[in-house]
Amino acid sequence: MASRAREAQARLAQADSEAKDLLLRSIADALVEHADEIAAANEMDMQAAFESGMPEGLLDRLHFTVERIAATAEGVRAVAGLADPVGEVVRGHNMPNGLRLAQVRVPLGVVGMIYEARPNVTVDVASLSLKSGNAVLLRGGHAARETNRATLRVISQTLAEHGFSSDLVASVDDFGRAGADALMQARGYIDLLVPRGGAGLIRSVVENSKVPVIETGAGNVHIYVDAAADLHKAIPIIINAKTQRVGVCNAAEKLLVHRSVAKEFLPEIARALSAYQVELRADAVSMDIIQAAHDESAIDGLRLEAAGPEDWGTEYLALKMGIKTVDSIDEAIEHINAFSTGHTEAIVSEDYAAIEEFTKRVDSAVVMVNASTRFTDGGMFGLGAELGISTQKLHARGPMGLQELTTTKWIGYGMGQVRP
Amino acid sequence: MASRAREAQARLAQADSEAKDLLLRSIADALVEHADEIAAANEMDMQAAFESGMPEGLLDRLHFTVERIAATAEGVRAVAGLADPVGEVVRGHNMPNGLRLAQVRVPLGVVGMIYEARPNVTVDVASLSLKSGNAVLLRGGHAARETNRATLRVISQTLAEHGFSSDLVASVDDFGRAGADALMQARGYIDLLVPRGGAGLIRSVVENSKVPVIETGAGNVHIYVDAAADLHKAIPIIINAKTQRVGVCNAAEKLLVHRSVAKEFLPEIARALSAYQVELRADAVSMDIIQAAHDESAIDGLRLEAAGPEDWGTEYLALKMGIKTVDSIDEAIEHINAFSTGHTEAIVSEDYAAIEEFTKRVDSAVVMVNASTRFTDGGMFGLGAELGISTQKLHARGPMGLQELTTTKWIGYGMGQVRP
Repeated sequence: MASRAREAQARLAQADSEAKDLLLRSIADALVEHADEIAAANEMDMQAAFESGMPEGLLDRLHFTVERIAATAEGVRAVAGLADPVGEVVRGHNMPNGLRLAQVRVPLGVVGMIYEARPNVTVDVASLSLKSGNAVLLRGGHAARETNRATLRVISQTLAEHGFSSDLVASVDDFGRAGADALMQARGYIDLLVPRGGAGLIRSVVENSKVPVIETGAGNVHIYVDAAADLHKAIPIIINAKTQRVGVCNAAEKLLVHRSVAKEFLPEIARALSAYQVELRADAVSMDIIQAAHDESAIDGLRLEAAGPEDWGTEYLALKMGIKTVDSIDEAIEHINAFSTGHTEAIVSEDYAAIEEFTKRVDSAVVMVNASTRFTDGGMFGLGAELGISTQKLHARGPMGLQELTTTKWIGYGMGQVRP
Repeated sequence: MASRAREAQARLAQADSEAKDLLLRSIADALVEHADEIAAANEMDMQAAFESGMPEGLLDRLHFTVERIAATAEGVRAVAGLADPVGEVVRGHNMPNGLRLAQVRVPLGVVGMIYEARPNVTVDVASLSLKSGNAVLLRGGHAARETNRATLRVISQTLAEHGFSSDLVASVDDFGRAGADALMQARGYIDLLVPRGGAGLIRSVVENSKVPVIETGAGNVHIYVDAAADLHKAIPIIINAKTQRVGVCNAAEKLLVHRSVAKEFLPEIARALSAYQVELRADAVSMDIIQAAHDESAIDGLRLEAAGPEDWGTEYLALKMGIKTVDSIDEAIEHINAFSTGHTEAIVSEDYAAIEEFTKRVDSAVVMVNASTRFTDGGMFGLGAELGISTQKLHARGPMGLQELTTTKWIGYGMGQVRP
């Protein structure tokens, strides 16, 4: 399959942007046209998942309604509207001997994707891959099998109608676990493998794959409230980052508060978070401050527990937040660089020097200043959609869009030059 | 050691370009000043290598004379003169809600390098790493042990004189093979591992490393002489690419000739290559043409053998060249994409359409048009020096200079924005 995908990709790589964008818009139309069929297939998956006792949060992610299909199709149109990364000249100059050098973007080749039961990912990944001239082999979650099958049928038909090979977007789901294993073994056939899902899935792929992997998604996300923070900005940012959507990688998990504002700020934020049913796991200093305030005037719904050492490295993906009081911005940065997964961190501050220090020294893919960490997202960043959010440093870091699905090629145009 | 390197790197990452360039120029001065000491240490390595029967080509690579030390120091000054990649804004825009996004270049962190007995690599890698804000852990070849020790002593002293930690450039050579193994296991401590040397070394690192690796150097390099080639350009390009330096990765190994010019061109190039003692391994068609010409008028020094199937995938690194006659540019491109290691390929042609076809469809790091493949080199490309030549597609492709030693970080500057 990977060989067939590579052959098909070699032809797609030569297609011009106009042809690729027309294809994507037709895929968007076809998805809307066949939304009832896809939604009906999804109902079968939903029924089976419900009967097997899938938790509500996962059921919600699995649900692919006609409305959500339409929104996903809109995303495909957005990708069609973006600039084509293929052919972009990244650098170039003439060598002293007149040889003209240009480094240009080219597709990676064949991309493999292993993901869990989120049907929109199938469409997002297909559209990004096609636009950037790549073929893609998909291994979706078992729970979304019928939905993915129906979705891929629509994409395959549209590819064929436009004279492209249906090998460009293919699924290995019919091979079950063996399909995922084959993707991980296919060094030389697959250029990049991206796992997207829970920590267990990602770790398993990173440890077992012989194909180069980009790690995505783990997010032990911190917000640091500086001595010079505007506390009126801090509360909505923290509430948004923690509660706007729980269980996603860009949701905040830890709150670090500078000692000089802790007495004023911690009771306020404890009150606000408690109103959203967020359980607090605090270090000793923060615990004392919050408890004292609670004793004085009850904080409704307060659930406060002492944080254990394991809390600082844990991505809760739940209505929980770790809280720590720090003596300095240095301590905040060092704590973050020690415990973060390198996804997204934020500072709330009005102090220019503190912001410079934090943005320079925090070693994560995204650093937000006075804004919610929930903005770390390919769509929000204007990349159209995303293949995932890379938390590693090699090749791609942060939301992966079209550019991250390319590599480069140097071309040297000469007139007979030889090396002296 | 990797932890100490990371601590030292965190401080180097904040150093401004001026301080880093001053450091590099002082290292260059110190190398020249201590060139006698380093050359004396090298004499010990040379003596031991000679006694152990090291082949002449490798002995030449190991030799680090006062003149070569001066040339290497000049390379350090060239790196000091290049623009600092750290801080470069790669992309940026405002989100519709006013959040200002910037993607900036930052150092990778800690780089590991496993290489063979080439003393100049120690200096090249140290200068590129320091300039790009990275720490580096080196595992050099056993045969260059005394040379590397003397070189690193000079670099360490200069680092200390400038207030930088000597942990920034450290060697694991004292730990022997265990040092290399530790580098490969240090996931989370080392951000990138680059093997540079023979195919065996590279394969071993790629297969055993848990740290992300960039493959370098394997070069089964092709030159295609098109139907529309200027044959007067083709001969010097091929002679230069094959013979100017044998045993390097950018030397040409295979020659593909379009059938329509084979009768005219093959006898000429066979004569030219034979004058340089190059042994020819030809397919049946090319063999017949060269043999017929030789029968008619003897080609001095001709060594002609039938190519076996294993020839097409072999990097000779010797005075040998595989020759094949192809029916079309399509056949040439397909042969290259099937057998190349993805390093460098060249086309000799005056036909615009053929050149476009070749440069677009050949899937290698570098494609040369009417120029020698020997130009694929960081120094030649204006990158100052090179860490190696990547033959893979992820993160870096082709000569790796300063930019390839960086990753990026997104920074979002907000005024309290939250996600709706």
